Amino acid sequence: MKFSGCIFSILLTFTLYLNGAPAAAAELSGETEACLACHALVTPGIVGDWHASYHYKSSPAEGLSKRRSSRRISAEQVPEPLADTAVGCAECHMMNADKHSDSFEHNGFTIHTVVSPSDCATCHPTEVTEFADNLMAEAYANLMHNPTYAGLIESTNGKHEFTGQGISFHGSDPVTDADSCISCHGTDVKVVGVETRETMMGEMDFPQLSNWPNTGVGRLNPDGSKGSCSSCHMRHQFSIEVARKPYTCAQCHKGPDVPAYKVYAVSMHGNIQKSVDKNWDYKAVPWTIGKDFTAPTCATCHASEIIDENGELLAKRTHRFNDRLPWRIFGIPYAHPHPIAADTSDIVNQAGLHFPTELTGEPVPKFLISPAEMEKRQGAMEAVCAGCHSDQWIKGHFARLDTSIETTNHMTLQATKILAQAWEEGLAAGIPQGQNPTNEAIELKWVEQWLFFGNSTRFATAMGGADYGVFADGRWYQAKNLQEMYDYLKFLRATKAAEK
Amino acid sequence: MKFSGCIFSILLTFTLYLNGAPAAAAELSGETEACLACHALVTPGIVGDWHASYHYKSSPAEGLSKRRSSRRISAEQVPEPLADTAVGCAECHMMNADKHSDSFEHNGFTIHTVVSPSDCATCHPTEVTEFADNLMAEAYANLMHNPTYAGLIESTNGKHEFTGQGISFHGSDPVTDADSCISCHGTDVKVVGVETRETMMGEMDFPQLSNWPNTGVGRLNPDGSKGSCSSCHMRHQFSIEVARKPYTCAQCHKGPDVPAYKVYAVSMHGNIQKSVDKNWDYKAVPWTIGKDFTAPTCATCHASEIIDENGELLAKRTHRFNDRLPWRIFGIPYAHPHPIAADTSDIVNQAGLHFPTELTGEPVPKFLISPAEMEKRQGAMEAVCAGCHSDQWIKGHFARLDTSIETTNHMTLQATKILAQAWEEGLAAGIPQGQNPTNEAIELKWVEQWLFFGNSTRFATAMGGADYGVFADGRWYQAKNLQEMYDYLKFLRATKAAEK
Amino acid sequence: MKFSGCIFSILLTFTLYLNGAPAAAAELSGETEACLACHALVTPGIVGDWHASYHYKSSPAEGLSKRRSSRRISAEQVPEPLADTAVGCAECHMMNADKHSDSFEHNGFTIHTVVSPSDCATCHPTEVTEFADNLMAEAYANLMHNPTYAGLIESTNGKHEFTGQGISFHGSDPVTDADSCISCHGTDVKVVGVETRETMMGEMDFPQLSNWPNTGVGRLNPDGSKGSCSSCHMRHQFSIEVARKPYTCAQCHKGPDVPAYKVYAVSMHGNIQKSVDKNWDYKAVPWTIGKDFTAPTCATCHASEIIDENGELLAKRTHRFNDRLPWRIFGIPYAHPHPIAADTSDIVNQAGLHFPTELTGEPVPKFLISPAEMEKRQGAMEAVCAGCHSDQWIKGHFARLDTSIETTNHMTLQATKILAQAWEEGLAAGIPQGQNPTNEAIELKWVEQWLFFGNSTRFATAMGGADYGVFADGRWYQAKNLQEMYDYLKFLRATKAAEK
Repeated sequence: MKFSGCIFSILLTFTLYLNGAPAAAAELSGETEACLACHALVTPGIVGDWHASYHYKSSPAEGLSKRRSSRRISAEQVPEPLADTAVGCAECHMMNADKHSDSFEHNGFTIHTVVSPSDCATCHPTEVTEFADNLMAEAYANLMHNPTYAGLIESTNGKHEFTGQGISFHGSDPVTDADSCISCHGTDVKVVGVETRETMMGEMDFPQLSNWPNTGVGRLNPDGSKGSCSSCHMRHQFSIEVARKPYTCAQCHKGPDVPAYKVYAVSMHGNIQKSVDKNWDYKAVPWTIGKDFTAPTCATCHASEIIDENGELLAKRTHRFNDRLPWRIFGIPYAHPHPIAADTSDIVNQAGLHFPTELTGEPVPKFLISPAEMEKRQGAMEAVCAGCHSDQWIKGHFARLDTSIETTNHMTLQATKILAQAWEEGLAAGIPQGQNPTNEAIELKWVEQWLFFGNSTRFATAMGGADYGVFADGRWYQAKNLQEMYDYLKFLRATKAAEK
Repeated sequence: MKFSGCIFSILLTFTLYLNGAPAAAAELSGETEACLACHALVTPGIVGDWHASYHYKSSPAEGLSKRRSSRRISAEQVPEPLADTAVGCAECHMMNADKHSDSFEHNGFTIHTVVSPSDCATCHPTEVTEFADNLMAEAYANLMHNPTYAGLIESTNGKHEFTGQGISFHGSDPVTDADSCISCHGTDVKVVGVETRETMMGEMDFPQLSNWPNTGVGRLNPDGSKGSCSSCHMRHQFSIEVARKPYTCAQCHKGPDVPAYKVYAVSMHGNIQKSVDKNWDYKAVPWTIGKDFTAPTCATCHASEIIDENGELLAKRTHRFNDRLPWRIFGIPYAHPHPIAADTSDIVNQAGLHFPTELTGEPVPKFLISPAEMEKRQGAMEAVCAGCHSDQWIKGHFARLDTSIETTNHMTLQATKILAQAWEEGLAAGIPQGQNPTNEAIELKWVEQWLFFGNSTRFATAMGGADYGVFADGRWYQAKNLQEMYDYLKFLRATKAAEK
Repeated sequence: MKFSGCIFSILLTFTLYLNGAPAAAAELSGETEACLACHALVTPGIVGDWHASYHYKSSPAEGLSKRRSSRRISAEQVPEPLADTAVGCAECHMMNADKHSDSFEHNGFTIHTVVSPSDCATCHPTEVTEFADNLMAEAYANLMHNPTYAGLIESTNGKHEFTGQGISFHGSDPVTDADSCISCHGTDVKVVGVETRETMMGEMDFPQLSNWPNTGVGRLNPDGSKGSCSSCHMRHQFSIEVARKPYTCAQCHKGPDVPAYKVYAVSMHGNIQKSVDKNWDYKAVPWTIGKDFTAPTCATCHASEIIDENGELLAKRTHRFNDRLPWRIFGIPYAHPHPIAADTSDIVNQAGLHFPTELTGEPVPKFLISPAEMEKRQGAMEAVCAGCHSDQWIKGHFARLDTSIETTNHMTLQATKILAQAWEEGLAAGIPQGQNPTNEAIELKWVEQWLFFGNSTRFATAMGGADYGVFADGRWYQAKNLQEMYDYLKFLRATKAAEK
């Protein structure tokens, strides 16, 4: 396409755009109109998606005119002229330009690619503040700066070499990491250069971003902030409906390490959601139990503001998603009370390992919440359950979770004992040898004992999807893996003896 | 909340409730109104859910006024005053009060927590009678009172101990059992005490129930009945739509032991259901093929009353879900003709094992249906298939099922031979040693051969989800597991030799 | 049912049928009316399904009256009288009667059971031509006539025998093959006899078809054509909506060998589709990005004609589904440039193995597309991505795919080296011994390295479902399997030594 034709095409596009787009309730800013003049042609998909959003259909001032409990906006006020315009391209991609190291000149405007929580905080400050205090906001450092977990990444993602005498590996490369673990945890996005590209508008310069694309929950952004609101509030519709549906959480919580979605899918809650959610109102704010929905999704229990038809508050909205969680059932390697701080990268146990419990399971109290705090969080969760269930039902449910935590931790301990025996006999090289404890086969079987089977069993209990915790990936494998680890120990012994 | 405020709040709630609830077609009983006066505030979620139900919108008398084929009620008549009121809280939770050992005084009413099939039988006697004759109704005893399966539960759910010289375990605890196997099979719910609890209405006494909560299909209820209608007809909407959707069955039929839902999901039937069921009418009674639905769900083939647009009956409704099933493809350990009686706990083969076949696969005829009965059931199923498929198509399909049964049974036999060899050589301790045959690693590999891979392959064939029966959890693993069992046998031998 | 009653019933049915069926926009042919006179009673489900189809609601002439880009029909003209009648039973099942070896006399009409792509080509020639040039159209021969893959089928599907001294197997039987691998790949459907059956109309003759039923993509049809349009365009609604939904592809692309659907389900694309596709128009032709849909399904990227709201073409429709795919990431055993020809059964590498790469990973250029062709296909795919994503986003995404291909191929090579070592030491019998390289346990672990873990990792990268490529079935198992293969090698050695 030649340049002149291109300009003509863009003008034509914009004319068509103005005729064809659904009516916005609020004015578009001049800057956003300028963006759309090209982008309705260049990236029509996201423009169309945005047309379905509240950001397009409404303005911050309209949001603020609602009574507080119905607002989707937590700022007390939003400055002009932003307040009275639709939230379009420019409003976000030009926000806080001076703080963004990824800001660049683009057709006469200073824009940035990576919209960050700090940008969103202009209208949604409470959510951003809460989220920052959340394990997820620190998901990058919690994984990458903890030496034990870093070793696990290396042995999982690294390129291994079979030498004939053994298997060696040397680290993992950043591209693979960005494509695996930190796809969910978030990557470190920095400006690493400038690139000139041929576009419809001729040559243009763009900043080169490292580890891009990414929408992980703990992303390190070029403005120094952490996280990505679009992990759950997908661009460019940013719909509360999407965030409240379990498919959003499933993006990162479906694997055997944290199978929340799979458990939900076999729970009665999940069944009801799949069967009759066509009758629900996923967009109502606040969310009325029994009227807008008749079974919980992930958001109901962990995040949303829930009221009943009389306006009584069952649960306050939170973006600190462990506010209603006393236990961290995601065992690494044992289930334990939730960490106090969002940043867990500096957790170290008495043995010097970077785990929140000893290798034998005892919690490291210094880093973990108190029994009083656990009780408070438990109470916040139970208040949601009580919207439908009796006290006896709820108590019975959580008594099972206590047992499940105790039993799975016990089974992890037995596996740990077998592994310790292997290390002691020199059948594998791990902690006593100062070696990576998560690379040899018997060590990886140990990891599966807690990361897959212990976690899966606990999630199955916690979320009422019992079927998942038996044969799918739970107690069956927990017992079988233990038996296999013991045989493996003996096979390694016999093999070593034969090699002599 | 103080007591006086509480009373005020309740009165206010009820006023709001009367104003806000959708109109019921039938009168509410005074007792139900009394329940709602508090429970619209205390458990608003289930009250809202019930508002969406036929129980709320209709009355038994209205149900009886329909022509027989369109009724959702099988009683010939329902006594006054029940007939003319909506089916509300009191109608079920006060039904048959004298038979319920869990009845208790609650604000001047005698109610029970556990609504049982016997209560539902007031209006739905045919369904309850049929269900009682069903394997599922006996799911508790069939599992817990069969010594062989009980051994499997112990080794799966028990807490194991690694002693340095081996792994021991001692039974499993009831809480874990209730949270795993018998979550689906049903728990034994008994009154085990009385508990005083602080409530919004002040102190109140409630019966303490054992193994609660539970909604398993074979639940032992405090009124002596078995089962739980709400396993499939979820409280408190009790919607036929939910029961007819496959997500209901998936709650207990998705794991590798009985992956019916997973097979359905990759079948053409499941694809069509997921893709176009927004155009279906899941509530129509009876259910008209080609009009109300264009592909079967689980209910279509196994339970529902199906007619065509001319009113011809394709299949009669049944809650004895093996009425259309000649084979029990859920092999324990071999596929076999369906058991005659619902209670299978006393099945024992010639070798004294509690299996419906010999360990070498031959059925034990005494306990199993005759060829004539098998043919009759096959005919009932084929009548459903014939709503869409030609005779040749149907015959071809079931010929494959015959082959699949024969081949998977054969592969189970080979695995059994390897295990028998291990037992004979003393490389594992099982039946010949009078030990649990389902706890050591090689034994658990044998269990997977039939419980996971044999079953999965057969379900994939039976339900037309062939893809699931190859690599997902079927023939591939069946062949691989056999090879691994043989190598395992040799590893155990070599290890034993080295230990000498 | 007696014969006279039967006739009466049929007449009554047809009368009811004429009154009850939804109005067709086009006339039904006399032949189709004759079919319906019985089949509305005999197979009411498919008649009802067809009533929901465009085939029923429209006529070819109406299709041709639309502007070209909105047509669902690619023929330039359709001869009378077909053009002006609805596309009913007779129009397809009597088409090209002389070419069909399965044609037979049926109540005075010559019909055939197996409607083939050649029949569909009457109205849809472009789609049929493109599809014929597609790997899928040759899926039967590509699998069954390639000796290496045939060996894999035998060891997977064959009935194995444990002899006490080892495990033997002898081929696989055709019924099992039709029920597994070639259920998706397509079976060889031939007329193998004639069968007389008792029907509602008395005794009738029908041709007996081999390997029936089947709707696999590479089915060998009795008219000599290949494929089955109804694999994706389900009978008898033939809905473009169904073909565009991912559940259709999931029928054959969900297992661990090719887990496209599972990856999609945890991608942001899949989340958006599940969450908001109730607002999409799956039936629009062409398909407008941002308006008809806001995230891609399988069809969007691989098949559909995509435009934007200005009418600009983003992607041309294709039924040659690798038109937008440079790499074949389905590694057998290594990812490689796409094969040139649809028929890959004659591919052979320098070592004489029937793989498109050497056993050490180097592609066999003679059979594979050129770098220029790869670039062209990549460009076609990127044009779809560019509907929503920036150039930097797209480049970053595909750079990860390059790394993922390189890394997974490397990990496959390491596994191959371990297997080669086992063969060299006589610990397994494979290629050097002239034996099936895919039947012993260590060989099957090697197969899983590429068929499951390599493939899954690459699909996770390619389709943006990173979570699936870590613990679900990707890099974790790739690393663990390699460690286990090495230990397995040592166990086999020790066992062999002990046996001496």
